[in-house]
Amino acid sequence: MTVVKSTLPDAARQVVGDALQGTLVDLLGLSLIGKQAHWNIVGPRFRSIHLQIDEVVATARTYSDTVAERAATLGIPPDGRPETIATTCALQAPKHGGWIQDTEVVSLLIEALETVIAQLRERIDATDEADRVTQDLLIGLTAELEKHRWMFQAEDWPS
Amino acid sequence: MTVVKSTLPDAARQVVGDALQGTLVDLLGLSLIGKQAHWNIVGPRFRSIHLQIDEVVATARTYSDTVAERAATLGIPPDGRPETIATTCALQAPKHGGWIQDTEVVSLLIEALETVIAQLRERIDATDEADRVTQDLLIGLTAELEKHRWMFQAEDWPS
Amino acid sequence: MTVVKSTLPDAARQVVGDALQGTLVDLLGLSLIGKQAHWNIVGPRFRSIHLQIDEVVATARTYSDTVAERAATLGIPPDGRPETIATTCALQAPKHGGWIQDTEVVSLLIEALETVIAQLRERIDATDEADRVTQDLLIGLTAELEKHRWMFQAEDWPS
Amino acid sequence: MTVVKSTLPDAARQVVGDALQGTLVDLLGLSLIGKQAHWNIVGPRFRSIHLQIDEVVATARTYSDTVAERAATLGIPPDGRPETIATTCALQAPKHGGWIQDTEVVSLLIEALETVIAQLRERIDATDEADRVTQDLLIGLTAELEKHRWMFQAEDWPS
Amino acid sequence: MTVVKSTLPDAARQVVGDALQGTLVDLLGLSLIGKQAHWNIVGPRFRSIHLQIDEVVATARTYSDTVAERAATLGIPPDGRPETIATTCALQAPKHGGWIQDTEVVSLLIEALETVIAQLRERIDATDEADRVTQDLLIGLTAELEKHRWMFQAEDWPS
Amino acid sequence: MTVVKSTLPDAARQVVGDALQGTLVDLLGLSLIGKQAHWNIVGPRFRSIHLQIDEVVATARTYSDTVAERAATLGIPPDGRPETIATTCALQAPKHGGWIQDTEVVSLLIEALETVIAQLRERIDATDEADRVTQDLLIGLTAELEKHRWMFQAEDWPS
Amino acid sequence: MTVVKSTLPDAARQVVGDALQGTLVDLLGLSLIGKQAHWNIVGPRFRSIHLQIDEVVATARTYSDTVAERAATLGIPPDGRPETIATTCALQAPKHGGWIQDTEVVSLLIEALETVIAQLRERIDATDEADRVTQDLLIGLTAELEKHRWMFQAEDWPS
Amino acid sequence: MTVVKSTLPDAARQVVGDALQGTLVDLLGLSLIGKQAHWNIVGPRFRSIHLQIDEVVATARTYSDTVAERAATLGIPPDGRPETIATTCALQAPKHGGWIQDTEVVSLLIEALETVIAQLRERIDATDEADRVTQDLLIGLTAELEKHRWMFQAEDWPS
Amino acid sequence: MTVVKSTLPDAARQVVGDALQGTLVDLLGLSLIGKQAHWNIVGPRFRSIHLQIDEVVATARTYSDTVAERAATLGIPPDGRPETIATTCALQAPKHGGWIQDTEVVSLLIEALETVIAQLRERIDATDEADRVTQDLLIGLTAELEKHRWMFQAEDWPS
Amino acid sequence: MTVVKSTLPDAARQVVGDALQGTLVDLLGLSLIGKQAHWNIVGPRFRSIHLQIDEVVATARTYSDTVAERAATLGIPPDGRPETIATTCALQAPKHGGWIQDTEVVSLLIEALETVIAQLRERIDATDEADRVTQDLLIGLTAELEKHRWMFQAEDWPS
Amino acid sequence: MTVVKSTLPDAARQVVGDALQGTLVDLLGLSLIGKQAHWNIVGPRFRSIHLQIDEVVATARTYSDTVAERAATLGIPPDGRPETIATTCALQAPKHGGWIQDTEVVSLLIEALETVIAQLRERIDATDEADRVTQDLLIGLTAELEKHRWMFQAEDWPS
Amino acid sequence: MTVVKSTLPDAARQVVGDALQGTLVDLLGLSLIGKQAHWNIVGPRFRSIHLQIDEVVATARTYSDTVAERAATLGIPPDGRPETIATTCALQAPKHGGWIQDTEVVSLLIEALETVIAQLRERIDATDEADRVTQDLLIGLTAELEKHRWMFQAEDWPS
Repeated sequence: MTVVKSTLPDAARQVVGDALQGTLVDLLGLSLIGKQAHWNIVGPRFRSIHLQIDEVVATARTYSDTVAERAATLGIPPDGRPETIATTCALQAPKHGGWIQDTEVVSLLIEALETVIAQLRERIDATDEADRVTQDLLIGLTAELEKHRWMFQAEDWPS
Repeated sequence: MTVVKSTLPDAARQVVGDALQGTLVDLLGLSLIGKQAHWNIVGPRFRSIHLQIDEVVATARTYSDTVAERAATLGIPPDGRPETIATTCALQAPKHGGWIQDTEVVSLLIEALETVIAQLRERIDATDEADRVTQDLLIGLTAELEKHRWMFQAEDWPS
Repeated sequence: MTVVKSTLPDAARQVVGDALQGTLVDLLGLSLIGKQAHWNIVGPRFRSIHLQIDEVVATARTYSDTVAERAATLGIPPDGRPETIATTCALQAPKHGGWIQDTEVVSLLIEALETVIAQLRERIDATDEADRVTQDLLIGLTAELEKHRWMFQAEDWPS
Repeated sequence: MTVVKSTLPDAARQVVGDALQGTLVDLLGLSLIGKQAHWNIVGPRFRSIHLQIDEVVATARTYSDTVAERAATLGIPPDGRPETIATTCALQAPKHGGWIQDTEVVSLLIEALETVIAQLRERIDATDEADRVTQDLLIGLTAELEKHRWMFQAEDWPS
Repeated sequence: MTVVKSTLPDAARQVVGDALQGTLVDLLGLSLIGKQAHWNIVGPRFRSIHLQIDEVVATARTYSDTVAERAATLGIPPDGRPETIATTCALQAPKHGGWIQDTEVVSLLIEALETVIAQLRERIDATDEADRVTQDLLIGLTAELEKHRWMFQAEDWPS
Repeated sequence: MTVVKSTLPDAARQVVGDALQGTLVDLLGLSLIGKQAHWNIVGPRFRSIHLQIDEVVATARTYSDTVAERAATLGIPPDGRPETIATTCALQAPKHGGWIQDTEVVSLLIEALETVIAQLRERIDATDEADRVTQDLLIGLTAELEKHRWMFQAEDWPS
Repeated sequence: MTVVKSTLPDAARQVVGDALQGTLVDLLGLSLIGKQAHWNIVGPRFRSIHLQIDEVVATARTYSDTVAERAATLGIPPDGRPETIATTCALQAPKHGGWIQDTEVVSLLIEALETVIAQLRERIDATDEADRVTQDLLIGLTAELEKHRWMFQAEDWPS
Repeated sequence: MTVVKSTLPDAARQVVGDALQGTLVDLLGLSLIGKQAHWNIVGPRFRSIHLQIDEVVATARTYSDTVAERAATLGIPPDGRPETIATTCALQAPKHGGWIQDTEVVSLLIEALETVIAQLRERIDATDEADRVTQDLLIGLTAELEKHRWMFQAEDWPS
Repeated sequence: MTVVKSTLPDAARQVVGDALQGTLVDLLGLSLIGKQAHWNIVGPRFRSIHLQIDEVVATARTYSDTVAERAATLGIPPDGRPETIATTCALQAPKHGGWIQDTEVVSLLIEALETVIAQLRERIDATDEADRVTQDLLIGLTAELEKHRWMFQAEDWPS
Repeated sequence: MTVVKSTLPDAARQVVGDALQGTLVDLLGLSLIGKQAHWNIVGPRFRSIHLQIDEVVATARTYSDTVAERAATLGIPPDGRPETIATTCALQAPKHGGWIQDTEVVSLLIEALETVIAQLRERIDATDEADRVTQDLLIGLTAELEKHRWMFQAEDWPS
Repeated sequence: MTVVKSTLPDAARQVVGDALQGTLVDLLGLSLIGKQAHWNIVGPRFRSIHLQIDEVVATARTYSDTVAERAATLGIPPDGRPETIATTCALQAPKHGGWIQDTEVVSLLIEALETVIAQLRERIDATDEADRVTQDLLIGLTAELEKHRWMFQAEDWPS
Repeated sequence: MTVVKSTLPDAARQVVGDALQGTLVDLLGLSLIGKQAHWNIVGPRFRSIHLQIDEVVATARTYSDTVAERAATLGIPPDGRPETIATTCALQAPKHGGWIQDTEVVSLLIEALETVIAQLRERIDATDEADRVTQDLLIGLTAELEKHRWMFQAEDWPS
């Protein structure tokens, strides 16, 4: 059943749909992992990183809405159900629950951000022909996530 | 490893920890299911319910932070990882992805809210002896969710 | 006809319904009497008390909405029609229309607030078993009205 | 006892006093009936009309203050006590307490607004000679209420 | 030299010009006298009246701008020079400089407001034929000043 | 088909309808011409007049909404379609597209404002009997447009 | 006469000028048609769609300014005069004046938005070589209009 | 001399009075010690903890006002004079004036917060029978202070 | 009659009183002359200077309040009555009423500002011994007025 | 141990340090005594003075931070511990706890403000050679406290 | 030493690094030259252009931060030291210090903006393959600077 | 050519001009060096110091405008061109471009701030006779920079 008609031809719609659905799952996963770190971090840099993570989560939540509504706009129903995230999100959550040392949190965030960024750069290439509007959205998102990655990496340097 | 010491005795800490962890998973699940409906709803009442759901999601997100930080405050590391939500959340997500009729969305939300509320009322009783501060927090959350339930139920009446 | 189903058992619903309906009528009565005094006060303390009364009216109006929507939330249709206020509100309005001396206004407000507070303290006890969420709401309201009473009483002292 | 002297001659003061007192009672009645509908409405258009009614109540409350203070300004003590509303307000409240279907709410509001507007148009004529300042106030109020009436009437059209 | 052409015929322009120029001088005088009282008041009601006067001054300043720009709009250059105020303003300033008792301040303000209001009511009649736009402006100003007068008169009542 | 019933008798409704429809078209025309000048102005006073015109457009847009909704309120469907503006609006747009010298822009705006004001003064007279509420609205609009006209005329003076 | 020199070569300037002028006329037409629907809509979904249309109009007005100033920036005087809109805008206004049923309004908006979007996608391709800055602007506009289209289409589904 | 009459019976008033007076002194002491640390902290985490302490001080100041006014509300004059704080506050201020190392500041704050929290939990139990309104206030305060304690403790972990 | 006691010795009080009273009259005069120019200016720079003057008036009004309240603070009743301004203010108002060319307005403002500044520099010296607090206030005022003077002088340069 | 090096020579540092430490203790004492009066005042002027005191407390709190951080800036660790205030602050707190009549509150505040002002004027002289930056800060503080003193003294006049 | 790893391959990193470093120096130079003109401009258009330049400076400062942080994000340390600007910035500052006539300022700004824009268009092409995210940033910057150029050029037209 | 006449005699103007020009160059240099550190800092305290530096830059930018406009106000054209900064600013920029360790950034900022402060203290003395208004400005600036210095120095303490 196709409810909302797409303004894209079928082939383009398939490519763009994959890019958006993949990004949606990444962003929802990133926001959950970010919050997990926000709550469980311990160590002398607690306050500074506790606050910094919430800015990553804000980016992830805002863009997850933008990405999902872009999919719906193109006639592609987005799927952000808990099971979908758990089974299709490639991001590595902390293996065990419990407190996490502040230096580990920095590594965790850098790794998660690099995973998402790498996939986004592929999707930017993939959507070049298919839909420039979606591509533009992904470029804006990549810029923000790369900036977050820089900030975590700059403070991953030994004192 | 106990990093953050609790101000509660062990027995109380166990009871309160279960209540908060259960509530956290419910709220994270509710926010994901709410967003899924927010994006996939179709039908003549689209706009009205699309906006209304975001108010439920706002409540769920705000309180998930409050609940998780209350757990950390009591020396209980909260667990909101994607797998934990997928395996322990009792809420019923839509069985299939894709568009959802507006009337079905209303039923879906009523059912989800009633499930959370029923568990919260049990947790309010359970924490009465263990920690009044946590109990007060759960009471405030219940008041908000019950008000959301009323609003969806009031519009579930046939025209 | 029961339109909005209650999450409370019948007995509790009866107790809580009475407490909320009684409070609603008190608050609507208080806001009308407060405005009557706000408009008709004369005397050298006119401006100071004219402004102070509007803060009582703001509390009364805000909580009348909260209380009525809490009733609806529990499947109890609230009743705030003019006739219901006129026939069931126990507060004493000024016996005659017309200007009121500022010192009389202070007495009028103290008396009205004490009447509402006394009934609220009974309702807090009555709802303890029936519904802690409603009880919590009434506690918050009592705190605000008692503070207003203090302020009027503190200025009821002779110079 | 005349406390606040009027800047109007006696005859004009009588005419204007009647116009303002009648308008005050209409507005207080409208705000109570509006809130009654706001709380008790059920049906698929619940949310839309629930919000819309609060804009009517806001108009009624703001202007009831303006109207009552205009009366006081002219040396006419306004009377907004509960009994006065119950006995002199011509507006038709819902006959029975309890839930009200959304379509009935729309009819209820249209009827109430038309009653107030009809009386206001007579008062605008009546105050033309007596006090242009009061007349100007009533004209502004009429414009707002007529706009509310249009909006309810436009949605009273069958789908 | 006529720089800004008027949209009114000459006779109307004369009438309206007189009304606006007279009002301008009254408002500038009122704002200066109000400030004089604001700074020199003493007595137990100091703070309450000190604040209240500034609301009168705010009205006077805002409307002096509106009135002067209305005159300019109609091709009538407004005149608010210090000498013009000193020689043509009918308001009674305090005869001597120095501190003023709070009760005297109340009388001073009532008298000044009544003088302006009486002239405004004549100007409202005078502009009825000449320019309804100007008349409407004067009606709005009169409403505000009469409200200020009520408030001072209401507190001129003995305790 | 009469959907929204009017609160005015038929004759008055005709008069008021003509006044409002004519004003609507004038205001929509004024906002389009104003924007055309805002974009195409050149000359040393570019910045000052570029900004000033946007205040005229803001007035025109705000009042076009007020005027159209007043018509709908009275049961008169307003007509602001492109063709209606092009065929019934009396305002003179620039004859040719392209850049416009700043001094010409000032003349263009003065002429356009004077045309609208002259028609508004006739409509104020015409609606005096028919509907004072509409008349009051047109008076307020005239005051704003006349003020804009003064400001352009004041700067139309040679240096 | 070329007043503002272009930073683009002549061929590119021609292509970009056509794209921007066409978009300007589309957006001005869309804002006028949107307002016509905003004022004349009737039916049970009046309030919801009445508000929703104003968001489309806000997009159209904001971008019409951006598009026109981009043209001026490139040395191309934009043309938004009433006649230009009436003769060159391809959007279909309602054929007759008067009230419009809410379901028809939804269809009207979907059709208008789809017309603009289709032309924008062509212009995005056309400006790819000519001016990436203009292309970026058109991409951003398309994203917003496609989102509006989705929302109207999602509620065009039968209940 | 009893000036403000209490709404509580004498026994309850004694219990509640002790709880509120003790809390008031704790909060005033906490705000002074917090500021002392805010000004004298040195070390690499200066900025982060300097800012964090001010949030504790904000909580302490806001609640000291609430607690003192609750006492006054119940007819118990609160006592926050400097001597009273110096002689009855159990919190441990830094023994010597002068700069304090950042790690010591963290320990100082944890200790101070734990002292206040322990006493508050006793007062919550003590006021359960005596006055639920006061108890509710103390519960809210405890929740905030326990959250502050968590944050300092989480950063007391070695790097 | 000395009502408000001064914290200054008599000689200092005399010096400071003269400085403040003189400054008060200057500032009130400046605000009246500024407004006169604000309303009567004509010429191509109308808008730019019309706005600029209001910033001078804002400075003059704000500081007239500060200066007068500083006098009252020191036990010196300030005198800002219309007659006092007309007879003791040294500033030169326009000799005749009526429109003023924009270039003349610039000269008028420069002259008025220079007159006030010259007197302020003398008063800064005079109060050096008498009261540094008053001196500091006059220094701040001088800085603002000198900045206004620069801006008018910078645009007094021929094009 | 000298942690933060001073930019002042030793002699100047001693003088400035004494001035700042003394002022800090005065301001902390003033804020505590002010709050004590804010909470315990009774009498007909309760509301007016209750609000007025909070403005004094706001000044005292803001400047206590500025003063203490100025000391730290100069390498002088400020001392605001409870015992330091209790033993070195010269201000007279109320001798007994409990309610205070409104007229006594006014005297109490005048006396406290005069004590602080007298010491500040000495410190302004003392710091003239030592550090003009600190002197400037103390001048600004004196101006604010003297204004508060005037306001309390102006209302200490019998009615 | 490579501290922050790049997400770009080496060749792309070189290209993008050159584009960003060049843009950074241009923007810092533009902000300094803009301020120089903002302070030294004289002539009748002083105020209008004085304000207009600050909008250019705001764009330059905001984007210099964005551009520098984008470089850091890609592992390229940006260089904005004074010497670097003085030796590598191609923009032409005023040859001599001192006042600048308003018409010269307009020419100076147009020239500076055209220099930056020309280089930006080359960098947009250069980064097309290397990094679309950086390219998108440069496109947005170009759009803003071209708009500033239009505005200065439009007012460079003779009156 | 002297365009803007000075209100100071020539000798004073020379002294004040040197003080202001020197300060301007210092502040512009400080803002550039601060930004260089803001972008290139690495190490575990990255985020905390990255934010802190921007507060120094904000002070430097705000005061550079104030200082330059004070110079212009006194008829002294300020010189802030890139070459002027590069050749006359005494502050030490980082010798090499590239990343900077966080501890080095703290030293860099302390050194730069101390250089500016030392020169400012000399300029405060130098301007004492010449112009108290300028002196007051420099005192305020010194207070802010000394506070920034304290904060960096307080965190330069080993952990």
